[in-house]
Amino acid sequence: MVIRALVFDAYGTLYDVQSVRSLAIDLCGDKGEIITHLWRLKQLEYTWLRTLMRSYEDFWSVTRAALEFALSSVGIAPTSSLCDELMDGYLHLDLYAEAPQALESLRDHKLAILSNGSPRMLEALVRSAGIAERFTAVVSCDQVKRYKPEPACYALVEPALQISKQEVLFISSNGFDVAGAKRYGFQVAWIERTGDVPPPQDSQVGPAAFYRLIRGGAEQLGYQPDFRLKRLTDLAAVLSA
Amino acid sequence: MVIRALVFDAYGTLYDVQSVRSLAIDLCGDKGEIITHLWRLKQLEYTWLRTLMRSYEDFWSVTRAALEFALSSVGIAPTSSLCDELMDGYLHLDLYAEAPQALESLRDHKLAILSNGSPRMLEALVRSAGIAERFTAVVSCDQVKRYKPEPACYALVEPALQISKQEVLFISSNGFDVAGAKRYGFQVAWIERTGDVPPPQDSQVGPAAFYRLIRGGAEQLGYQPDFRLKRLTDLAAVLSA
Repeated sequence: MVIRALVFDAYGTLYDVQSVRSLAIDLCGDKGEIITHLWRLKQLEYTWLRTLMRSYEDFWSVTRAALEFALSSVGIAPTSSLCDELMDGYLHLDLYAEAPQALESLRDHKLAILSNGSPRMLEALVRSAGIAERFTAVVSCDQVKRYKPEPACYALVEPALQISKQEVLFISSNGFDVAGAKRYGFQVAWIERTGDVPPPQDSQVGPAAFYRLIRGGAEQLGYQPDFRLKRLTDLAAVLSA
Repeated sequence: MVIRALVFDAYGTLYDVQSVRSLAIDLCGDKGEIITHLWRLKQLEYTWLRTLMRSYEDFWSVTRAALEFALSSVGIAPTSSLCDELMDGYLHLDLYAEAPQALESLRDHKLAILSNGSPRMLEALVRSAGIAERFTAVVSCDQVKRYKPEPACYALVEPALQISKQEVLFISSNGFDVAGAKRYGFQVAWIERTGDVPPPQDSQVGPAAFYRLIRGGAEQLGYQPDFRLKRLTDLAAVLSA
Protein backbone atom coordinates (compact mmCIF):
# COMPACT_ATOMS: atom_id res chain seq x y z
CA MET A 1 0.00 0.00 0.00
CA VAL A 2 1.44 3.36 -1.03
CA ILE A 3 2.01 5.87 1.76
CA ARG A 4 1.89 9.44 0.51
CA ALA A 5 1.80 11.26 3.85
CA LEU A 6 2.51 10.65 7.52
CA VAL A 7 0.02 12.28 9.85
CA PHE A 8 0.93 12.54 13.52
CA ASP A 9 -1.15 12.89 16.60
CA ALA A 10 0.41 15.58 18.82
CA TYR A 11 -0.37 15.08 22.52
CA GLY A 12 1.25 11.92 23.80
CA THR A 13 2.73 11.05 20.40
CA LEU A 14 5.10 13.89 19.46
CA TYR A 15 4.75 15.79 22.74
CA ASP A 16 5.02 14.35 26.21
CA VAL A 17 1.89 15.36 28.13
CA GLN A 18 3.61 14.16 31.30
CA SER A 19 6.15 16.94 30.95
CA VAL A 20 3.86 19.14 33.05
CA ARG A 21 4.59 16.76 35.94
CA SER A 22 7.61 18.62 37.32
CA LEU A 23 5.74 21.93 37.14
CA ALA A 24 2.78 20.34 38.94
CA ILE A 25 5.09 19.04 41.66
CA ASP A 26 6.77 22.45 41.97
CA LEU A 27 3.42 24.18 42.37
CA CYS A 28 1.37 21.53 44.20
CA GLY A 29 3.97 19.56 46.17
CA ASP A 30 3.22 15.97 47.07
CA LYS A 31 -0.04 16.00 45.13
CA GLY A 32 1.62 17.01 41.86
CA GLU A 33 1.94 13.46 40.61
CA ILE A 34 -1.69 12.52 41.03
CA ILE A 35 -2.81 15.88 39.63
CA THR A 36 -0.80 15.23 36.46
CA HIS A 37 -2.55 11.92 35.83
CA LEU A 38 -6.05 13.02 36.79
CA TRP A 39 -5.63 16.07 34.58
CA ARG A 40 -4.79 14.04 31.48
CA LEU A 41 -7.48 11.41 32.13
CA LYS A 42 -10.17 14.07 32.57
CA GLN A 43 -8.92 16.07 29.60
CA LEU A 44 -9.53 13.07 27.35
CA GLU A 45 -12.84 12.20 29.00
CA TYR A 46 -14.10 15.73 28.50
CA THR A 47 -13.22 15.70 24.81
CA TRP A 48 -15.26 12.50 24.41
CA LEU A 49 -18.15 13.58 26.61
CA ARG A 50 -18.51 17.08 25.15
CA THR A 51 -18.54 15.63 21.66
CA LEU A 52 -21.22 13.13 22.69
CA MET A 53 -23.26 15.83 24.47
CA ARG A 54 -23.08 18.15 21.46
CA SER A 55 -21.53 20.71 23.75
CA TYR A 56 -18.22 21.58 22.19
CA GLU A 57 -15.67 23.81 23.86
CA ASP A 58 -12.18 24.16 22.45
CA PHE A 59 -9.23 22.13 23.76
CA TRP A 60 -7.89 25.01 25.80
CA SER A 61 -11.21 25.27 27.70
CA VAL A 62 -11.48 21.50 28.08
CA THR A 63 -7.91 21.25 29.33
CA ARG A 64 -8.54 23.99 31.86
CA ALA A 65 -11.80 22.41 33.06
CA ALA A 66 -9.97 19.09 33.47
CA LEU A 67 -7.27 20.85 35.49
CA GLU A 68 -9.89 22.46 37.73
CA PHE A 69 -11.47 19.05 38.27
CA ALA A 70 -8.09 17.51 39.15
CA LEU A 71 -7.12 20.27 41.58
CA SER A 72 -10.53 20.32 43.29
CA SER A 73 -10.56 16.53 43.61
CA VAL A 74 -7.39 16.51 45.65
CA GLY A 75 -8.44 19.46 47.80
CA ILE A 76 -6.48 22.26 46.13
CA ALA A 77 -8.37 25.44 45.22
CA PRO A 78 -8.20 25.97 41.43
CA THR A 79 -7.28 29.65 41.65
CA SER A 80 -6.75 31.66 38.47
CA SER A 81 -3.06 32.17 39.12
CA LEU A 82 -2.37 28.49 39.80
CA CYS A 83 -4.36 27.36 36.76
CA ASP A 84 -2.72 29.99 34.56
CA GLU A 85 0.74 28.76 35.49
CA LEU A 86 -0.09 25.10 34.91
CA MET A 87 -1.92 25.83 31.66
CA ASP A 88 1.10 27.73 30.39
CA GLY A 89 3.04 24.50 30.78
CA TYR A 90 0.71 22.95 28.23
CA LEU A 91 1.91 25.44 25.59
CA HIS A 92 5.51 24.33 26.09
CA LEU A 93 5.33 20.58 26.39
CA ASP A 94 8.56 18.71 25.68
CA LEU A 95 8.93 16.84 22.43
CA TYR A 96 9.75 13.19 23.05
CA ALA A 97 13.52 12.85 22.94
CA GLU A 98 13.51 10.85 19.72
CA ALA A 99 11.06 13.12 17.87
CA PRO A 100 13.53 15.60 16.25
CA GLN A 101 15.66 12.77 14.86
CA ALA A 102 12.58 10.89 13.66
CA LEU A 103 11.23 13.95 11.87
CA GLU A 104 14.64 14.60 10.32
CA SER A 105 14.80 11.03 8.97
CA LEU A 106 11.35 11.53 7.41
CA ARG A 107 12.14 14.89 5.81
CA ASP A 108 11.59 13.58 2.28
CA HIS A 109 7.99 12.65 3.11
CA LYS A 110 4.92 14.78 3.37
CA LEU A 111 4.24 15.22 7.10
CA ALA A 112 1.26 16.66 8.95
CA ILE A 113 -0.30 16.88 12.40
CA LEU A 114 -3.94 16.09 13.21
CA SER A 115 -4.70 17.05 16.78
CA ASN A 116 -7.46 17.89 19.21
CA GLY A 117 -5.46 20.99 20.17
CA SER A 118 -6.87 24.38 19.33
CA PRO A 119 -5.07 26.25 16.53
CA ARG A 120 -3.46 28.60 19.06
CA MET A 121 -2.20 25.72 21.19
CA LEU A 122 -0.80 23.84 18.20
CA GLU A 123 0.89 26.93 16.83
CA ALA A 124 2.55 27.55 20.19
CA LEU A 125 3.65 23.91 20.40
CA VAL A 126 5.27 23.60 17.00
CA ARG A 127 6.87 27.04 17.25
CA SER A 128 8.18 26.43 20.73
CA ALA A 129 9.77 23.17 19.59
CA GLY A 130 11.15 24.66 16.35
CA ILE A 131 9.54 22.01 14.14
CA ALA A 132 6.88 24.10 12.37
CA GLU A 133 8.64 23.97 9.00
CA ARG A 134 8.61 20.17 8.99
CA PHE A 135 4.85 20.02 8.41
CA THR A 136 2.83 20.57 5.27
CA ALA A 137 -0.25 21.08 7.44
CA VAL A 138 -1.08 21.35 11.13
CA VAL A 139 -4.75 20.44 11.30
CA SER A 140 -6.92 21.10 14.34
CA CYS A 141 -10.14 19.20 15.06
CA ASP A 142 -11.48 22.58 16.14
CA GLN A 143 -12.53 23.06 12.52
CA VAL A 144 -15.34 20.55 12.99
CA LYS A 145 -16.04 21.31 16.67
CA ARG A 146 -15.66 17.66 17.62
CA TYR A 147 -12.88 15.53 19.00
CA LYS A 148 -11.21 12.30 18.03
CA PRO A 149 -12.21 9.50 17.53
CA GLU A 150 -15.19 11.09 15.72
CA PRO A 151 -14.83 10.29 11.99
CA ALA A 152 -15.35 13.96 11.07
CA CYS A 153 -11.98 14.73 12.64
CA TYR A 154 -10.01 12.22 10.59
CA ALA A 155 -11.88 13.38 7.50
CA LEU A 156 -10.07 16.72 7.76
CA VAL A 157 -6.84 15.16 6.54
CA GLU A 158 -7.77 14.33 2.96
CA PRO A 159 -8.74 17.84 1.83
CA ALA A 160 -5.84 19.37 3.77
CA LEU A 161 -3.27 17.16 2.04
CA GLN A 162 -5.12 16.45 -1.22
CA ILE A 163 -4.75 12.70 -0.83
CA SER A 164 -7.07 9.77 -0.18
CA LYS A 165 -7.41 8.10 3.21
CA GLN A 166 -5.81 4.86 2.03
CA GLU A 167 -2.61 6.81 1.33
CA VAL A 168 -2.29 8.13 4.88
CA LEU A 169 -0.14 6.54 7.57
CA PHE A 170 -1.54 7.87 10.82
CA ILE A 171 0.75 7.70 13.84
CA SER A 172 -0.44 7.80 17.43
CA SER A 173 0.54 6.46 20.81
CA ASN A 174 -3.03 6.84 22.08
CA GLY A 175 -4.90 3.56 21.81
CA PHE A 176 -8.32 5.16 21.28
CA ASP A 177 -6.86 7.28 18.47
CA VAL A 178 -5.33 4.20 16.85
CA ALA A 179 -8.72 2.49 16.89
CA GLY A 180 -10.55 5.57 15.62
CA ALA A 181 -8.10 6.19 12.79
CA LYS A 182 -8.18 2.54 11.73
CA ARG A 183 -11.97 2.54 11.85
CA TYR A 184 -11.91 5.63 9.65
CA GLY A 185 -9.76 3.93 7.04
CA PHE A 186 -6.20 5.14 7.51
CA GLN A 187 -3.18 2.89 7.70
CA VAL A 188 -2.11 3.20 11.33
CA ALA A 189 1.08 2.88 13.33
CA TRP A 190 0.78 2.62 17.09
CA ILE A 191 3.73 3.98 19.06
CA GLU A 192 3.51 1.67 22.03
CA ARG A 193 5.39 3.71 24.60
CA THR A 194 4.30 1.75 27.63
CA GLY A 195 4.90 -1.68 26.17
CA ASP A 196 7.90 -2.58 28.30
CA VAL A 197 6.33 -2.10 31.71
CA PRO A 198 5.77 -5.44 33.48
CA PRO A 199 2.25 -6.05 34.80
CA PRO A 200 1.70 -5.32 38.49
CA GLN A 201 2.10 -8.11 41.04
CA ASP A 202 -1.00 -7.14 43.02
CA SER A 203 -3.40 -4.21 43.45
CA GLN A 204 -0.87 -2.02 45.28
CA VAL A 205 -0.11 0.38 42.47
CA GLY A 206 0.18 4.15 42.64
CA PRO A 207 -1.37 6.72 40.31
CA ALA A 208 1.45 6.65 37.75
CA ALA A 209 1.23 2.87 37.33
CA PHE A 210 -2.56 2.91 37.32
CA TYR A 211 -2.54 5.65 34.71
CA ARG A 212 -0.25 3.50 32.54
CA LEU A 213 -2.62 0.58 32.92
CA ILE A 214 -5.63 2.67 31.93
CA ARG A 215 -4.01 4.36 28.95
CA GLY A 216 -1.19 2.00 28.00
CA GLY A 217 -2.66 -1.23 26.68
CA ALA A 218 -4.09 -2.12 23.29
CA GLU A 219 -7.72 -0.99 23.31
CA GLN A 220 -10.32 -3.72 22.82
CA LEU A 221 -12.34 -1.69 20.34
CA GLY A 222 -12.28 -4.04 17.39
CA TYR A 223 -9.60 -2.27 15.36
CA GLN A 224 -5.92 -3.12 15.43
CA PRO A 225 -3.02 -1.02 14.10
CA ASP A 226 -1.12 -2.07 11.01
CA PHE A 227 2.21 -1.47 12.76
CA ARG A 228 3.22 -1.61 16.41
CA LEU A 229 6.39 0.38 17.03
CA LYS A 230 8.39 1.18 20.12
CA ARG A 231 9.37 4.69 19.10
CA LEU A 232 9.01 7.30 16.38
CA THR A 233 12.46 6.52 14.97
CA ASP A 234 11.12 3.08 13.95
CA LEU A 235 8.92 4.73 11.30
CA ALA A 236 11.71 5.05 8.74
CA ALA A 237 12.09 1.27 8.62
CA VAL A 238 8.35 0.85 8.02
CA LEU A 239 8.55 3.20 5.04
CA SER A 240 11.57 1.57 3.47
CA ALA A 241 10.13 -1.95 3.88
CA MET B 1 -41.66 22.46 38.26
CA VAL B 2 -43.99 19.48 38.11
CA ILE B 3 -42.36 16.06 38.27
CA ARG B 4 -44.44 13.38 36.59
CA ALA B 5 -41.89 10.57 36.52
CA LEU B 6 -38.61 9.55 38.14
CA VAL B 7 -36.16 7.94 35.76
CA PHE B 8 -33.19 6.11 37.24
CA ASP B 9 -29.82 5.24 35.86
CA ALA B 10 -29.05 1.60 36.73
CA TYR B 11 -25.30 0.90 36.98
CA GLY B 12 -23.79 2.80 39.88
CA THR B 13 -27.10 4.41 40.83
CA LEU B 14 -29.49 1.57 41.74
CA TYR B 15 -26.91 -1.22 41.38
CA ASP B 16 -23.45 -1.29 42.88
CA VAL B 17 -21.00 -2.03 40.06
CA GLN B 18 -18.34 -2.60 42.71
CA SER B 19 -20.24 -5.65 43.92
CA VAL B 20 -18.21 -7.74 41.46
CA ARG B 21 -15.16 -6.88 43.59
CA SER B 22 -15.38 -9.87 45.91
CA LEU B 23 -15.87 -12.23 42.97
CA ALA B 24 -12.86 -10.67 41.24
CA ILE B 25 -10.77 -11.14 44.37
CA ASP B 26 -11.96 -14.75 44.71
CA LEU B 27 -11.01 -15.51 41.11
CA CYS B 28 -7.98 -13.28 40.61
CA GLY B 29 -6.47 -12.97 44.07
CA ASP B 30 -4.41 -9.90 44.92
CA LYS B 31 -5.13 -8.32 41.56
CA GLY B 32 -8.91 -8.46 42.00
CA GLU B 33 -9.17 -4.95 43.35
CA ILE B 34 -7.38 -3.25 40.49
CA ILE B 35 -9.23 -5.41 37.95
CA THR B 36 -12.57 -4.23 39.37
CA HIS B 37 -11.67 -0.58 38.88
CA LEU B 38 -9.99 -0.95 35.49
CA TRP B 39 -12.98 -2.94 34.29
CA ARG B 40 -15.49 -0.23 35.16
CA LEU B 41 -13.31 2.59 33.83
CA LYS B 42 -12.80 0.82 30.51
CA GLN B 43 -16.45 -0.20 30.28
CA LEU B 44 -17.47 3.45 30.38
CA GLU B 45 -14.68 4.54 28.04
CA TYR B 46 -15.72 1.93 25.49
CA THR B 47 -19.34 3.09 25.54
CA TRP B 48 -18.17 6.62 24.79
CA LEU B 49 -15.54 5.65 22.23
CA ARG B 50 -17.72 3.19 20.33
CA THR B 51 -20.48 5.78 20.11
CA LEU B 52 -18.00 8.35 18.81
CA MET B 53 -16.49 5.88 16.34
CA ARG B 54 -19.93 4.88 15.02
CA SER B 55 -19.04 1.34 15.95
CA TYR B 56 -21.76 0.22 18.33
CA GLU B 57 -21.66 -3.09 20.16
CA ASP B 58 -24.15 -3.84 22.92
CA PHE B 59 -23.34 -3.35 26.58
CA TRP B 60 -22.69 -7.03 27.15
CA SER B 61 -20.00 -7.03 24.45
CA VAL B 62 -18.53 -3.76 25.66
CA THR B 63 -18.45 -4.98 29.25
CA ARG B 64 -16.69 -8.17 28.19
CA ALA B 65 -14.16 -6.30 26.05
CA ALA B 66 -13.44 -4.02 29.02
CA LEU B 67 -12.95 -7.07 31.24
CA GLU B 68 -10.54 -8.60 28.73
CA PHE B 69 -8.60 -5.34 28.66
CA ALA B 70 -8.46 -5.23 32.46
CA LEU B 71 -7.30 -8.83 32.83
CA SER B 72 -4.69 -8.56 30.08
CA SER B 73 -3.35 -5.32 31.51
CA VAL B 74 -2.49 -6.93 34.80
CA GLY B 75 -1.02 -10.04 33.20
CA ILE B 76 -3.94 -12.45 33.59
CA ALA B 77 -5.04 -14.42 30.53
CA PRO B 78 -8.68 -13.54 29.71
CA THR B 79 -9.80 -17.15 29.25
CA SER B 80 -13.41 -17.90 28.34
CA SER B 81 -14.13 -19.61 31.64
CA LEU B 82 -12.71 -16.79 33.76
CA CYS B 83 -14.51 -14.12 31.73
CA ASP B 84 -17.76 -16.09 31.81
CA GLU B 85 -17.68 -16.32 35.58
CA LEU B 86 -16.92 -12.62 36.06
CA MET B 87 -19.50 -11.57 33.47
CA ASP B 88 -22.12 -13.62 35.25
CA GLY B 89 -21.50 -11.42 38.29
CA TYR B 90 -22.63 -8.48 36.21
CA LEU B 91 -26.09 -10.04 35.85
CA HIS B 92 -26.47 -10.23 39.63
CA LEU B 93 -25.11 -6.96 40.91
CA ASP B 94 -26.27 -5.95 44.37
CA LEU B 95 -28.82 -3.20 44.74
CA TYR B 96 -27.51 -0.43 46.94
CA ALA B 97 -28.71 -1.13 50.46
CA GLU B 98 -31.07 1.84 50.54
CA ALA B 99 -32.61 1.17 47.12
CA PRO B 100 -35.54 -1.10 48.12
CA GLN B 101 -36.71 1.33 50.80
CA ALA B 102 -36.28 4.29 48.45
CA LEU B 103 -38.34 2.61 45.72
CA GLU B 104 -41.00 1.66 48.27
CA SER B 105 -41.29 5.28 49.45
CA LEU B 106 -41.74 6.37 45.81
CA ARG B 107 -44.38 3.76 44.97
CA ASP B 108 -47.05 6.38 44.23
CA HIS B 109 -44.90 7.88 41.47
CA LYS B 110 -44.26 6.74 37.96
CA LEU B 111 -40.80 5.16 37.94
CA ALA B 112 -38.58 4.03 35.10
CA ILE B 113 -35.01 3.02 34.30
CA LEU B 114 -32.90 4.42 31.45
CA SER B 115 -29.69 2.46 31.15
CA ASN B 116 -26.83 1.59 28.83
CA GLY B 117 -27.46 -2.05 29.71
CA SER B 118 -28.71 -4.37 26.99
CA PRO B 119 -32.33 -5.50 27.35
CA ARG B 120 -31.20 -8.97 28.47
CA MET B 121 -28.87 -7.53 31.12
CA LEU B 122 -31.50 -5.15 32.46
CA GLU B 123 -34.13 -7.86 32.59
CA ALA B 124 -31.78 -10.10 34.55
CA LEU B 125 -30.93 -7.27 36.94
CA VAL B 126 -34.45 -6.18 37.82
CA ARG B 127 -35.67 -9.77 38.06
CA SER B 128 -32.75 -10.88 40.20
CA ALA B 129 -33.41 -8.01 42.60
CA GLY B 130 -37.18 -8.52 42.61
CA ILE B 131 -37.96 -4.92 41.69
CA ALA B 132 -39.28 -5.37 38.15
CA GLU B 133 -42.86 -4.51 39.10
CA ARG B 134 -41.82 -1.13 40.47
CA PHE B 135 -41.13 0.27 37.01
CA THR B 136 -43.49 1.48 34.32
CA ALA B 137 -40.69 1.10 31.78
CA VAL B 138 -37.15 -0.26 31.68
CA VAL B 139 -35.57 1.50 28.72
CA SER B 140 -32.31 0.39 27.13
CA CYS B 141 -30.12 2.70 25.06
CA ASP B 142 -29.64 -0.31 22.81
CA GLN B 143 -32.74 0.89 20.95
CA VAL B 144 -30.72 3.72 19.41
CA LYS B 145 -27.36 1.88 19.25
CA ARG B 146 -25.63 4.67 21.13
CA TYR B 147 -24.66 5.28 24.72
CA LYS B 148 -25.19 8.05 27.23
CA PRO B 149 -24.54 10.97 27.26
CA GLU B 150 -25.68 11.06 23.60
CA PRO B 151 -28.94 13.04 23.46
CA ALA B 152 -30.64 10.28 21.44
CA CYS B 153 -30.50 8.07 24.55
CA TYR B 154 -32.28 10.51 26.83
CA ALA B 155 -34.81 11.15 24.08
CA LEU B 156 -36.08 7.58 24.54
CA VAL B 157 -37.77 8.52 27.80
CA GLU B 158 -40.49 10.83 26.53
CA PRO B 159 -42.19 8.39 24.11
CA ALA B 160 -41.77 5.51 26.58
CA LEU B 161 -43.56 7.40 29.37
CA GLN B 162 -45.71 9.75 27.29
CA ILE B 163 -44.47 12.84 29.09
CA SER B 164 -42.32 15.84 28.19
CA LYS B 165 -38.68 16.15 29.18
CA GLN B 166 -39.34 19.01 31.60
CA GLU B 167 -41.54 16.66 33.63
CA VAL B 168 -38.78 14.10 34.17
CA LEU B 169 -36.61 13.92 37.26
CA PHE B 170 -33.57 11.93 36.17
CA ILE B 171 -31.51 10.33 38.92
CA SER B 172 -27.90 9.26 38.53
CA SER B 173 -24.76 8.93 40.60
CA ASN B 174 -22.58 9.12 37.48
CA GLY B 175 -21.32 12.65 36.95
CA PHE B 176 -21.17 12.38 33.16
CA ASP B 177 -24.76 11.13 33.11
CA VAL B 178 -25.88 14.01 35.31
CA ALA B 179 -24.28 16.47 32.88
CA GLY B 180 -25.71 14.71 29.82
CA ALA B 181 -29.23 14.53 31.24
CA LYS B 182 -29.16 18.16 32.28
CA ARG B 183 -27.84 19.19 28.88
CA TYR B 184 -30.72 17.24 27.33
CA GLY B 185 -33.30 19.11 29.37
CA PHE B 186 -34.34 16.87 32.27
CA GLN B 187 -34.50 17.94 35.87
CA VAL B 188 -31.65 16.07 37.47
CA ALA B 189 -30.75 14.71 40.89
CA TRP B 190 -27.15 13.64 41.50
CA ILE B 191 -26.69 10.89 44.06
CA GLU B 192 -23.29 11.92 45.32
CA ARG B 193 -22.10 8.65 46.81
CA THR B 194 -18.46 9.59 47.17
CA GLY B 195 -19.04 13.00 48.67
CA ASP B 196 -17.80 12.18 52.15
CA VAL B 197 -14.34 10.93 51.24
CA PRO B 198 -11.63 13.39 52.33
CA PRO B 199 -9.15 14.42 49.62
CA PRO B 200 -5.82 12.56 49.62
CA GLN B 201 -2.87 14.00 51.51
CA ASP B 202 -0.36 13.24 48.77
CA SER B 203 0.00 11.16 45.60
CA GLN B 204 0.27 7.84 47.46
CA VAL B 205 -3.20 6.53 46.68
CA GLY B 206 -4.17 3.03 45.58
CA PRO B 207 -6.53 2.05 42.76
CA ALA B 208 -9.73 2.28 44.83
CA ALA B 209 -8.98 5.84 45.94
CA PHE B 210 -7.80 6.88 42.48
CA TYR B 211 -10.94 5.40 40.97
CA ARG B 212 -13.05 7.46 43.38
CA LEU B 213 -11.14 10.58 42.39
CA ILE B 214 -11.65 9.91 38.68
CA ARG B 215 -15.34 9.07 38.92
CA GLY B 216 -16.46 10.73 42.13
CA GLY B 217 -16.28 14.49 41.75
CA ALA B 218 -18.65 16.93 40.09
CA GLU B 219 -17.81 16.93 36.40
CA GLN B 220 -16.67 20.24 34.92
CA LEU B 221 -18.85 19.92 31.83
CA GLY B 222 -20.89 23.09 32.15
CA TYR B 223 -24.07 21.49 33.52
CA GLN B 224 -24.96 21.20 37.19
CA PRO B 225 -27.67 19.02 38.77
CA ASP B 226 -30.79 20.57 40.25
CA PHE B 227 -30.43 18.47 43.39
CA ARG B 228 -27.39 16.97 45.11
CA LEU B 229 -28.38 14.10 47.38
CA LYS B 230 -26.41 11.70 49.55
CA ARG B 231 -28.61 8.67 48.95
CA LEU B 232 -31.69 7.46 47.09
CA THR B 233 -33.86 7.73 50.21
CA ASP B 234 -33.42 11.53 50.06
CA LEU B 235 -35.58 11.64 46.92
CA ALA B 236 -38.88 11.52 48.80
CA ALA B 237 -38.05 14.81 50.52
CA VAL B 238 -37.31 16.45 47.16
CA LEU B 239 -40.71 15.41 45.87
CA SER B 240 -42.65 16.59 48.91
CA ALA B 241 -40.84 19.97 48.95
